[in-house]
Amino acid sequence: MIDLRSDTITQPTAAMREAIATAAVGDDVFGDDPTVNALEEYVAALLGKEAAVFMPSGTMTNQIALRVHTEPGDEVILESEAHIYYYEGGAPAALSGVSCRLVKGDRGIFTAADVRQVLRPIDSHFPKTKLVCLENTHNRGGGRIFPLAEVESIAQVCREQDLPLHLDGARFWNACVATGISEAAYAKPFDTVSVCFSKGLGAPVGSALAGSREMMARARRFRKMFGGGMRQAGMMAAGALYGLQYQLARLSEDHANAKNLAENLSQIEGVEISPEYVETNLVVFHTLELPAQILVDRLREKGVAMLAVGTHSVRAVTSLMVTQTQMEQVPKLVEEIISTAKLSKI
Amino acid sequence: MIDLRSDTITQPTAAMREAIATAAVGDDVFGDDPTVNALEEYVAALLGKEAAVFMPSGTMTNQIALRVHTEPGDEVILESEAHIYYYEGGAPAALSGVSCRLVKGDRGIFTAADVRQVLRPIDSHFPKTKLVCLENTHNRGGGRIFPLAEVESIAQVCREQDLPLHLDGARFWNACVATGISEAAYAKPFDTVSVCFSKGLGAPVGSALAGSREMMARARRFRKMFGGGMRQAGMMAAGALYGLQYQLARLSEDHANAKNLAENLSQIEGVEISPEYVETNLVVFHTLELPAQILVDRLREKGVAMLAVGTHSVRAVTSLMVTQTQMEQVPKLVEEIISTAKLSKI
Amino acid sequence: MIDLRSDTITQPTAAMREAIATAAVGDDVFGDDPTVNALEEYVAALLGKEAAVFMPSGTMTNQIALRVHTEPGDEVILESEAHIYYYEGGAPAALSGVSCRLVKGDRGIFTAADVRQVLRPIDSHFPKTKLVCLENTHNRGGGRIFPLAEVESIAQVCREQDLPLHLDGARFWNACVATGISEAAYAKPFDTVSVCFSKGLGAPVGSALAGSREMMARARRFRKMFGGGMRQAGMMAAGALYGLQYQLARLSEDHANAKNLAENLSQIEGVEISPEYVETNLVVFHTLELPAQILVDRLREKGVAMLAVGTHSVRAVTSLMVTQTQMEQVPKLVEEIISTAKLSKI
Amino acid sequence: MIDLRSDTITQPTAAMREAIATAAVGDDVFGDDPTVNALEEYVAALLGKEAAVFMPSGTMTNQIALRVHTEPGDEVILESEAHIYYYEGGAPAALSGVSCRLVKGDRGIFTAADVRQVLRPIDSHFPKTKLVCLENTHNRGGGRIFPLAEVESIAQVCREQDLPLHLDGARFWNACVATGISEAAYAKPFDTVSVCFSKGLGAPVGSALAGSREMMARARRFRKMFGGGMRQAGMMAAGALYGLQYQLARLSEDHANAKNLAENLSQIEGVEISPEYVETNLVVFHTLELPAQILVDRLREKGVAMLAVGTHSVRAVTSLMVTQTQMEQVPKLVEEIISTAKLSKI
Repeated sequence: MIDLRSDTITQPTAAMREAIATAAVGDDVFGDDPTVNALEEYVAALLGKEAAVFMPSGTMTNQIALRVHTEPGDEVILESEAHIYYYEGGAPAALSGVSCRLVKGDRGIFTAADVRQVLRPIDSHFPKTKLVCLENTHNRGGGRIFPLAEVESIAQVCREQDLPLHLDGARFWNACVATGISEAAYAKPFDTVSVCFSKGLGAPVGSALAGSREMMARARRFRKMFGGGMRQAGMMAAGALYGLQYQLARLSEDHANAKNLAENLSQIEGVEISPEYVETNLVVFHTLELPAQILVDRLREKGVAMLAVGTHSVRAVTSLMVTQTQMEQVPKLVEEIISTAKLSKI
Repeated sequence: MIDLRSDTITQPTAAMREAIATAAVGDDVFGDDPTVNALEEYVAALLGKEAAVFMPSGTMTNQIALRVHTEPGDEVILESEAHIYYYEGGAPAALSGVSCRLVKGDRGIFTAADVRQVLRPIDSHFPKTKLVCLENTHNRGGGRIFPLAEVESIAQVCREQDLPLHLDGARFWNACVATGISEAAYAKPFDTVSVCFSKGLGAPVGSALAGSREMMARARRFRKMFGGGMRQAGMMAAGALYGLQYQLARLSEDHANAKNLAENLSQIEGVEISPEYVETNLVVFHTLELPAQILVDRLREKGVAMLAVGTHSVRAVTSLMVTQTQMEQVPKLVEEIISTAKLSKI
Repeated sequence: MIDLRSDTITQPTAAMREAIATAAVGDDVFGDDPTVNALEEYVAALLGKEAAVFMPSGTMTNQIALRVHTEPGDEVILESEAHIYYYEGGAPAALSGVSCRLVKGDRGIFTAADVRQVLRPIDSHFPKTKLVCLENTHNRGGGRIFPLAEVESIAQVCREQDLPLHLDGARFWNACVATGISEAAYAKPFDTVSVCFSKGLGAPVGSALAGSREMMARARRFRKMFGGGMRQAGMMAAGALYGLQYQLARLSEDHANAKNLAENLSQIEGVEISPEYVETNLVVFHTLELPAQILVDRLREKGVAMLAVGTHSVRAVTSLMVTQTQMEQVPKLVEEIISTAKLSKI
Repeated sequence: MIDLRSDTITQPTAAMREAIATAAVGDDVFGDDPTVNALEEYVAALLGKEAAVFMPSGTMTNQIALRVHTEPGDEVILESEAHIYYYEGGAPAALSGVSCRLVKGDRGIFTAADVRQVLRPIDSHFPKTKLVCLENTHNRGGGRIFPLAEVESIAQVCREQDLPLHLDGARFWNACVATGISEAAYAKPFDTVSVCFSKGLGAPVGSALAGSREMMARARRFRKMFGGGMRQAGMMAAGALYGLQYQLARLSEDHANAKNLAENLSQIEGVEISPEYVETNLVVFHTLELPAQILVDRLREKGVAMLAVGTHSVRAVTSLMVTQTQMEQVPKLVEEIISTAKLSKI
């Protein structure tokens, strides 16, 4: 199977399994797990933050960031298809009692002016704006990178308005590798940053939230309440640490594979895609006639897994689970299916 | 003062004050208040519902409707500037833990197709769609009436999807008077209907939520929890009952006054307004050059109160507090201010 | 009917109705209601606080106090049968997400040592203690007065621990009248005080929350969100203001009537009551053999209404709705019913 | 270090590490992880339930059970020191909006009569009782076993009242091993059962919730929202499965070690403990004079870790991390410290 559904499907490599199997562990609820502690310190240093907290998922790191920064009745500014709003089960309202104020972005990216547009005056009819969230790279924006200059302009508005700024960095590593900007430089404008180890980095489980010591103490308390306090979590943290140390640089291969795929797909009649939009490891293309789900089903039969993300939109994600050679087979299969479908109509 | 800020500013007439002063009362928390009981029965009958519950505000009737129909993690479909989402302090998230799924309407009105567009598949990444809310007439849509045929199409989708349908009827009476459709007929497609007594009807305080007996039992429990259980509430209910019985038909005068105002304003250079958009008692017009707030401030000095609702948008609302004669003075004042402003620029 | 179920059943007197009927009003959501403003200033001054906010019920003033002082995951220290915990529909958890940490009091009164006993260490396993609430007089404690000295000792612990202190003063006026302590002196140790106008004072509807200007700004925002923002609320405020000005001192009559009732009941065989426990207008007595509900039902047939508050406990509350003469008839009826019940057993 | 702080400190054995390292995994959010699926089926079968869901912690399985069974404003009946109320950060109120109605148990065990005592009548003043929770074995009750007959009596009341019954089975395996009652028989009276793999069983991370297919579908949705959806979670599940298959029966050794420890401690002057209260692997003893924390600190210096759980109460927990030989050294050290402390006073 050439599995292009997501980079969340990455499996631990043999070396990562070895790191996991031999990890030194302790009871992390007592603060005793040396590998969790090492990972938290490593992440905090890498992102240039005072502290970091390991958690079981990116949904938890994001939702706890919301809890840390808000109280019920507050409002969070987000892109209209931000993962936090779109894919986290309605958690902002359910767990933090906060409203989402949506800004329509361009493939996930919005501007400082957009933020100013939706600021609320102080009035008891309105929720209180308390947080701005960005997503870099942006999942539903097709892996688009949030330009650092734009991040900084938004951060400037946030400072003026005394609003904290959170980053959903589920694919933050991809943004850093693709741009060459250091993790610390890219994380600097943010008060809190959520990063994920179980996507491109290939670790089985885990995310981290980073920020000031004070915010992280608050996050740690809410992590316990949400059910994210784990015991010998070092086994998971070992995978994350291995991924960070040995599988981060190779994300550039995923980006190259994605770019090639996009270019090859753009040659196919019946497929629409702008290869210049493929900035990292996500490839979203559109089928002009064939319904996306039919293409996806037929590809599956031929051993290629993708996801339909719209009636005529399909997503393919590259990761360490697929090789360059495998990727080169994919466009042919897509072309075959589309042309067969056309013929069968006649 | 010609007060056109809102119809919420209506004061009780002498006859209504008399009705309030002489109301028979009891302890409504014990169910003993005869006037509250009479009002609840009157409203239920008028709307063709099994039961109704009196509450201190329209925000409470709406928010309790949300509580009745949902649980945290659910999602409610609403127009993008619905009062429930826009002006109720973020209460859907804060008090019910529900997310708002916004549909962009045309001056507040959307279609069955719009609803279908935002339905979610069953997937643990998504909140569960559990309710659709309409607003009739629509406040930020400039008092636009929701056509009954469109309401019925949306209700049809709701039935198919097993979704209850709630009406924010803050200005429901205006819709009924303007269209001649009976309250019961207009309320029929809805599972719950919120109506207000302290706007055009002129009562000092109060709203009611109507629906099935079972839903209203649930609403009564949540009313207590939200702090809406009042004791000798019959004094307030008496004003509401008086408004319903004696001040409902006269809403047509407010509509005529609003229409005239709109037509007269449309003659003024520097003002933009489509009089055909004025369907009830709300008049929203746009100033081409003069900032709305400056016009509002200068009108205030001349004894006319309106609200700026955008940088170049002003809202005027007619009610029993203004006479036809007073209304005829307003356009001249607007014209004067705008032309003076133009001259002073030269 | 001699209605002794509660002092919430008090009806407006003719003079109060007159005050209500002639009240100057405005739209309180715009801050325009002169009578609401006058009441809020009067209450703030009387309690020695910076500001006060008028609300539709005591449940709302209490629950908004909790919202003002806490965030979800916090804990509030309360007496085990405090109204806020016991009779407000589970609102602390539902609306503020806070846990109740209960202290067993002696007829509603607990000590500074009790508070110290339940303080939590800082640990992510525990909710964070954030508020202490007292109730004066204590409803389920039989109207017991919270001694000022004890209040001050508890306030001392709160200061040390940086915990705000809230008073549920549903029957605060009774405590002041009974002790002769001024409202300001009795309110001084508290950060926020909730007082009620629709109990002994006889107003139809309303309560107020008082505290610092900053806290009251926060309370005002949450009031809107909870649905407590009302329009021409001055009609209600007029009743409250009248009650405060003309019907406060007469609470001493209710206390005398309650004391007499208790003494007379204590003479009856089959009834147990300690008259020295009756400190204000609540009388709780116990039936040694006859089930409380049966006594209550039979009294009702004879024109006297009380409430069964336990299997063998009955509550009678004096108020302006009952005269001294009426009260003198009650013990005879109780005695009659009890002795008849005994005979019928033979 | 002889670590007796908790059985949560258990580290994976070499064989368990091997099982983890070689686990077949997939993306569990897509339902693709074979080891998670195997574990969920194994647990469901063992407990005689239709389905089970793997989660990162026991706090999450418990709190999601509350979410599955309730809505905000409901009330849950719990023992006064139940882990769910006492040690889960105030989550019942914060995440589910539910109130805790506490029943005072005898070392954690309460009766059907106790449940009946706290049932609420239907009244809008009260939260709605919606769930009863037991804890077996009971942590703060010193590992006491909840007798099956008593569980069944309580389940009978629950059926009558249409109340679901949840088990916090953090140490359920200990109860089964100690009594010889099968897991399915002990789980039968419950609608949902939470079990833990990272305590006595020795797995690094994880718990499961079991119940009907419908409830588990609901639990799975809330798991995602709470941030408990993990990717290649099979690595964790492999540890859990290994623990269940190979390290369950050996819990009897922990029980024997605990009993011996209790008996030996009971011989020491200055220590109070009733060995017959030690039913599983928790040993709680009381120091008559020496403050618990001082004993704990001095034991730590000598290489033994315990927890002070009261001013004069200390908890020691046996697990696979300590041998019988090690356990035999402990009482001597306790005795030494206590007698030294006595001497130093002279």
